[in-house]
Amino acid sequence: FAMEGLDDKLILNVGGMRHETYISTVRAFPGTRLYKLTEPPPPGSPAAQGPPVREFFFDRNPELFSYVLGYYRTRQLHCPNDVCRDVLEEELAYWGLAEAPLAPCCWLKLSGRETRTQDFLSWEACENAHLDERLLLNPMEGQGLRNAWKPWLWVLLDQPQSSLGAKCLSLISTLFAVCALVIFFQETEVQLDYFSANFTPMGHGAGVGGNQQQQQQQQNNGLVYRRAPHLLYLELLCALWFGTELFARAISCPDKVRFLCSPLNLADIFCLFPVLVELVVGDKAERQPRLSLTLGAIRSLYVLKLVRLLGFLEKSLALRVLVHTLHSSWKEVCAFLLIWVAEILFFGSLFLYGELLGISTPGQSELHFGDIFTCLWWTVITLTTVGYGDIYPLSAMGQLTAAVTATVGMCTGVLLVPVLLVRFQRYYAVALARQKLRPSGIL
Amino acid sequence: FAMEGLDDKLILNVGGMRHETYISTVRAFPGTRLYKLTEPPPPGSPAAQGPPVREFFFDRNPELFSYVLGYYRTRQLHCPNDVCRDVLEEELAYWGLAEAPLAPCCWLKLSGRETRTQDFLSWEACENAHLDERLLLNPMEGQGLRNAWKPWLWVLLDQPQSSLGAKCLSLISTLFAVCALVIFFQETEVQLDYFSANFTPMGHGAGVGGNQQQQQQQQNNGLVYRRAPHLLYLELLCALWFGTELFARAISCPDKVRFLCSPLNLADIFCLFPVLVELVVGDKAERQPRLSLTLGAIRSLYVLKLVRLLGFLEKSLALRVLVHTLHSSWKEVCAFLLIWVAEILFFGSLFLYGELLGISTPGQSELHFGDIFTCLWWTVITLTTVGYGDIYPLSAMGQLTAAVTATVGMCTGVLLVPVLLVRFQRYYAVALARQKLRPSGIL
Amino acid sequence: FAMEGLDDKLILNVGGMRHETYISTVRAFPGTRLYKLTEPPPPGSPAAQGPPVREFFFDRNPELFSYVLGYYRTRQLHCPNDVCRDVLEEELAYWGLAEAPLAPCCWLKLSGRETRTQDFLSWEACENAHLDERLLLNPMEGQGLRNAWKPWLWVLLDQPQSSLGAKCLSLISTLFAVCALVIFFQETEVQLDYFSANFTPMGHGAGVGGNQQQQQQQQNNGLVYRRAPHLLYLELLCALWFGTELFARAISCPDKVRFLCSPLNLADIFCLFPVLVELVVGDKAERQPRLSLTLGAIRSLYVLKLVRLLGFLEKSLALRVLVHTLHSSWKEVCAFLLIWVAEILFFGSLFLYGELLGISTPGQSELHFGDIFTCLWWTVITLTTVGYGDIYPLSAMGQLTAAVTATVGMCTGVLLVPVLLVRFQRYYAVALARQKLRPSGIL
Amino acid sequence: FAMEGLDDKLILNVGGMRHETYISTVRAFPGTRLYKLTEPPPPGSPAAQGPPVREFFFDRNPELFSYVLGYYRTRQLHCPNDVCRDVLEEELAYWGLAEAPLAPCCWLKLSGRETRTQDFLSWEACENAHLDERLLLNPMEGQGLRNAWKPWLWVLLDQPQSSLGAKCLSLISTLFAVCALVIFFQETEVQLDYFSANFTPMGHGAGVGGNQQQQQQQQNNGLVYRRAPHLLYLELLCALWFGTELFARAISCPDKVRFLCSPLNLADIFCLFPVLVELVVGDKAERQPRLSLTLGAIRSLYVLKLVRLLGFLEKSLALRVLVHTLHSSWKEVCAFLLIWVAEILFFGSLFLYGELLGISTPGQSELHFGDIFTCLWWTVITLTTVGYGDIYPLSAMGQLTAAVTATVGMCTGVLLVPVLLVRFQRYYAVALARQKLRPSGIL
Repeated sequence: FAMEGLDDKLILNVGGMRHETYISTVRAFPGTRLYKLTEPPPPGSPAAQGPPVREFFFDRNPELFSYVLGYYRTRQLHCPNDVCRDVLEEELAYWGLAEAPLAPCCWLKLSGRETRTQDFLSWEACENAHLDERLLLNPMEGQGLRNAWKPWLWVLLDQPQSSLGAKCLSLISTLFAVCALVIFFQETEVQLDYFSANFTPMGHGAGVGGNQQQQQQQQNNGLVYRRAPHLLYLELLCALWFGTELFARAISCPDKVRFLCSPLNLADIFCLFPVLVELVVGDKAERQPRLSLTLGAIRSLYVLKLVRLLGFLEKSLALRVLVHTLHSSWKEVCAFLLIWVAEILFFGSLFLYGELLGISTPGQSELHFGDIFTCLWWTVITLTTVGYGDIYPLSAMGQLTAAVTATVGMCTGVLLVPVLLVRFQRYYAVALARQKLRPSGIL
Repeated sequence: FAMEGLDDKLILNVGGMRHETYISTVRAFPGTRLYKLTEPPPPGSPAAQGPPVREFFFDRNPELFSYVLGYYRTRQLHCPNDVCRDVLEEELAYWGLAEAPLAPCCWLKLSGRETRTQDFLSWEACENAHLDERLLLNPMEGQGLRNAWKPWLWVLLDQPQSSLGAKCLSLISTLFAVCALVIFFQETEVQLDYFSANFTPMGHGAGVGGNQQQQQQQQNNGLVYRRAPHLLYLELLCALWFGTELFARAISCPDKVRFLCSPLNLADIFCLFPVLVELVVGDKAERQPRLSLTLGAIRSLYVLKLVRLLGFLEKSLALRVLVHTLHSSWKEVCAFLLIWVAEILFFGSLFLYGELLGISTPGQSELHFGDIFTCLWWTVITLTTVGYGDIYPLSAMGQLTAAVTATVGMCTGVLLVPVLLVRFQRYYAVALARQKLRPSGIL
Repeated sequence: FAMEGLDDKLILNVGGMRHETYISTVRAFPGTRLYKLTEPPPPGSPAAQGPPVREFFFDRNPELFSYVLGYYRTRQLHCPNDVCRDVLEEELAYWGLAEAPLAPCCWLKLSGRETRTQDFLSWEACENAHLDERLLLNPMEGQGLRNAWKPWLWVLLDQPQSSLGAKCLSLISTLFAVCALVIFFQETEVQLDYFSANFTPMGHGAGVGGNQQQQQQQQNNGLVYRRAPHLLYLELLCALWFGTELFARAISCPDKVRFLCSPLNLADIFCLFPVLVELVVGDKAERQPRLSLTLGAIRSLYVLKLVRLLGFLEKSLALRVLVHTLHSSWKEVCAFLLIWVAEILFFGSLFLYGELLGISTPGQSELHFGDIFTCLWWTVITLTTVGYGDIYPLSAMGQLTAAVTATVGMCTGVLLVPVLLVRFQRYYAVALARQKLRPSGIL
Repeated sequence: FAMEGLDDKLILNVGGMRHETYISTVRAFPGTRLYKLTEPPPPGSPAAQGPPVREFFFDRNPELFSYVLGYYRTRQLHCPNDVCRDVLEEELAYWGLAEAPLAPCCWLKLSGRETRTQDFLSWEACENAHLDERLLLNPMEGQGLRNAWKPWLWVLLDQPQSSLGAKCLSLISTLFAVCALVIFFQETEVQLDYFSANFTPMGHGAGVGGNQQQQQQQQNNGLVYRRAPHLLYLELLCALWFGTELFARAISCPDKVRFLCSPLNLADIFCLFPVLVELVVGDKAERQPRLSLTLGAIRSLYVLKLVRLLGFLEKSLALRVLVHTLHSSWKEVCAFLLIWVAEILFFGSLFLYGELLGISTPGQSELHFGDIFTCLWWTVITLTTVGYGDIYPLSAMGQLTAAVTATVGMCTGVLLVPVLLVRFQRYYAVALARQKLRPSGIL
């Protein structure tokens, strides 16, 4: 009953695969399940009577046990490529090796799968938000007529691809949007004419020609400026349609908060105001060019209605993944914006002092800018490599600053690529998997 | 013959590999093939007579059975990295586990291969369209002389790499194209001279100098403007060659519809017109400068003939994959175009109102634009970061709008990269595989 | 006792898995451990007495032995995908095959893991530098009150995310930075006014108007130019705060050398000077516009304080990896800078001579540049595709040079992408692994 | 001796692993090695006497045999992830399945490795060209003193990193290059002064001032224009050094052809000429400004000597891989250049006719260009998004053309990224593997 010879073999039948090893190998890590097999049984127990047991059966995964046994043999714990972390941890816990350190070369094997699962859940959550809305459509779960029309209306308005009716409705909306845009463009013509008739003379002509005549003409023009009434009524018609659609979408929307947070919906709400304000203010609006211009600026939100046309391409996975990527990397986007602003401020100040220092040497004399904000404007235009040429450095020091600014601007754009790309690749792989496997019921 | 003890071992010999497990493990999922093994045989059957069977043989894949058994042991279904979906599903169906849910960490294993197979078939279809044409070449399958010359002619004209004759023909075509281009460039000179002689005076001189003399000179010039006849005849010669070649390609083409839909072929057809029209209209063309200019604009399609030179590089896999990527991601390209147009319209309107609001404060006075289309033009030039500088914002609000526009434009280009890249990588891997394996007959 | 027949089978029980092979197979590589098994035992030994042994047991990895045996069978040494290099080398050494050449198709299997491990250690070292500082926080290891406050202070100042106090402190610092920036912007206005009052007249008016009056006015202005004292004192207050903060950070910093080498800290030190110099120099500064301008240029370092705001986003892994990527690829960055400078010099010279050669033909006459440095400036602006338009080629040869320059510039930016991306992907994978696995204690 | 029952089991002991299957399974593919096992032995043979054999031993790879047997069971041939193509084909051939079609899902497994091996050999060849030169250094293989100095000299001159002497020599060369550049820049000043003194008056002043005085002044200047002799002699000194170095490199170079084809060496040869020509021509050069300008243009090759500084960074793997990528994708680079040229020609012509058509409507009148080459120049500047603003469209049609041109230009740059990136990634992985494994002798 003494300790058996360490050179004796031990047969470990794990799930039918017979692993053989020396007892001495197994005694490498005291306290583990395998070590306990080699301990002599307590004297009083029945097992202590017979010859020492040499073969043990475990109903466990035989492949992973190879790695466990490898740990006893080489004191390095590796793992196969295709192992899942849960499985590995459960096996290690069973064999009493939960604390065993994984070899560095195998760390990435676990984390890759880990990350992918996490990405999957993130994408799943994003997609399910849409899915839930679709499930609302199911008439089977509606508790009555009162609730049945809501999802029906929502799907009709929100998913142009879902039915023929939805397609027609979406087409009509698009036509109204195009119509509103055309009206809007017509209006800019009127406003530009009004502006060039009234304001330009005031600036130029004031000093030259007679001021009185001018002023009277201006007031005449001011009275003349009036939107053609038919345009106003046409726009009112468009606004009525947009308002009705928005109202229908708002009451049928399953999640009001998310509805209000969507920038497209906010734009829809805001672009109803101009017509209403103009109707209320009436003729007075024409006398207040600033109000009229502000209303015009808000009208440019009509353009965003065209973005709804993307709904026709809804199934484009790559675009949805791109949006999700931008959403989920808001930290990086914020950081890039912060760096962008810091670059603008820094190079703008440098440019200002570079030019001042360079030009204060007599010879050249006229600066292209009069305050630091013009310098900042120059910096943006240089960093983005637009380079209008309205402002450019005149002195050698300013040119040096500008050269560095342009080079930095070129590189900033390039640095964005890897950050976006790596995330996009991960989410895209996961989104593709979901698209393939969902219909076949594997998931 | 009662139910045997649940702790008893069961030996499952699957394809020669002996898996051992407890009967209790196998009884985890009732109704499956393994569960049925543990049910007592019906009393009357011969199997009910002898001792209960403990070892079963199945002529199935032994490796995958490890994962099946793992499902019974841990209630999580995993799969190996290198499994093919068909194989996995067939095995699961055999063991009665077709409904079993795959663990999340293994979803991507299946989808990756799935996607790759689909990409492969997409690329295969794209390449086979070409291949079919090549197969037509085989004289063995021609049913007679009448059909034999068609594929021969097609290959001769369409694949410059295929034979020495095809190379020569392609070279001659290229020479003719270069010749047509040179003629076309010569012609622009004549038209520019004519234009600056006739139109610039009309604009400037009309108000200043005497009108009569001018008008007479113009008519004289109008009569003088005449393409040198030898250029016209030379171009006619080129057009004859191009027409003959196009006709030969059209009648020998195995797929007329695809032939007509190819933009290069359409360009070939269109660029035959200018010479013909000029021949028909004769001297009258010179009196109608607009017609003459339109014909010139169509002539610029001659340049596309140079693109056929790419045929000499036909084997460049990367380019063919790039074209296929663009083709197959038409949805994303459309979406980007739509976003592009929306950006132009939106920032154009914002810029217009930003400038108007900023400048209406007296001080500065002259706008750089007179209508909204000039604003849209400015937006394109800013979004693409070209920035000519013919139009630039003068007020602080306009500069702010322009800064945002330029930043958005810089980022829009960057966002295109990941979408294209991910698809390109997939198709390229697949195209490379096809190129390697096709000749060695593995596929 | 003679040599047994070469066709006899040999049973190699490796870790429980029985491999069988012919003796002739094993005799392929003399001198290896397996070969020695087949050698007849020395006559005198006890083993030489009995029948020749046919079965041997080895307590080694059974999976890798398959590949070892495959080497004997096919004379090609392959390895599995998921093997770690250490393990493979140890096994090969045990079997006496340390010199065996790996088949080419398996080279990448080893190097991939190798590289990843190396990346991991590089990233680990980079992160541990931060980690060590955090560990200093542990009060358990502090040997007394004297040392305990240092890490506490350091973490308070350096890691805005660590506690509420740190957040407040960071917020106050940011407010002071914004304040300093506002003062700095105010000052630029004063300096621009002074400059346009004094220098522009000197340049233009000198030749035209009376010089004496001018000069006197200038001196008057010179005396008038004075920073509003309250701005100076406000800035002094900011500088005091910055100085205190910098001092506290300096004495509590665990690694003074690294502290001094950080560009942000150097900027912090430098931007303390302007106020001090102005206080010391006093009224004299206003009489020395160059000194005043230089001080202003140094003040633009205040902007860098805003970059500390990134500390609020500290957990963004992608950004830290991006910085590490740029750090560790300094060689590539240097090389690109060198190539950039060479491009500027080369195309600048070409442009100069292109223009000179092209313009020396009579007709056009005024060059846009007067020395080669203006050409170099033009080259930078063209390579970065900024294109202000202050200088552009006038002759055909200059335009050709410019076209090549612009195309090269566009491609240089594109070439940067793959170099950065490949490194970023590697480090990001590794950083992600570390982030996932560190908390769960696997590493 | 009759055919045994098809339901009987067959035991296939492949390399020690016992696979069991039914005889009926194995009879799926007649003519293969396994099928033959089930054929009854010829009556006369000794094997026909005893009971039919049920167990066979094969000394082959047991893992791959699983897939072979899987083919018999499911009629689909799959393969493991980590198999090498050679190994798979050898096994299939042994089992008589050389023609068996691989399942589509496994095609990419083979091709990936295939491609990587090919990339490896391509990179190996590229690197060995360098390696061979280095091996020449080995004194052991030198057959005598006569041959020993050549490689020593080559390494000394070509690899700045190899020894201290090489570093010094490279430093001296760099200093000489900088010196030559400074001289070159000095000279451009002289030439610019000469040009503005002589040619600008000729253009402008000719019509205004007296011509005689001008001409005399010009001749005086012509005589005055003279490079400062000390600059000429200094440059001669530099040229002597460069010539000596080039000569030494040329005679010690192990591969003369490759030496002559390297663009850097060609540049070295060409930039020796200017000084020599000037010495020969002597004073006459000053009277021929075109010759002098051409010599100056050639002198700009001095800049390329700075690129040799990259030698100090020689170990940067990423750069060498980048160069190799560009080399090996010359087809794609050519294609992109061709597309680039076609785009320039096409959009240039469109722009010309767009402007002509748009402007021929009276109102605006002055074109920005006078011939088609100016249009092509505009197209390059727009496609690269440089946009100087010297030429821009004035009519709506021209603006439309320009907008399309700018958008196409922006996308062309983006399309380059994936093509380059995919190749770069492949070569980089392979180069990294080589760098890691070469020193440890695994390769």
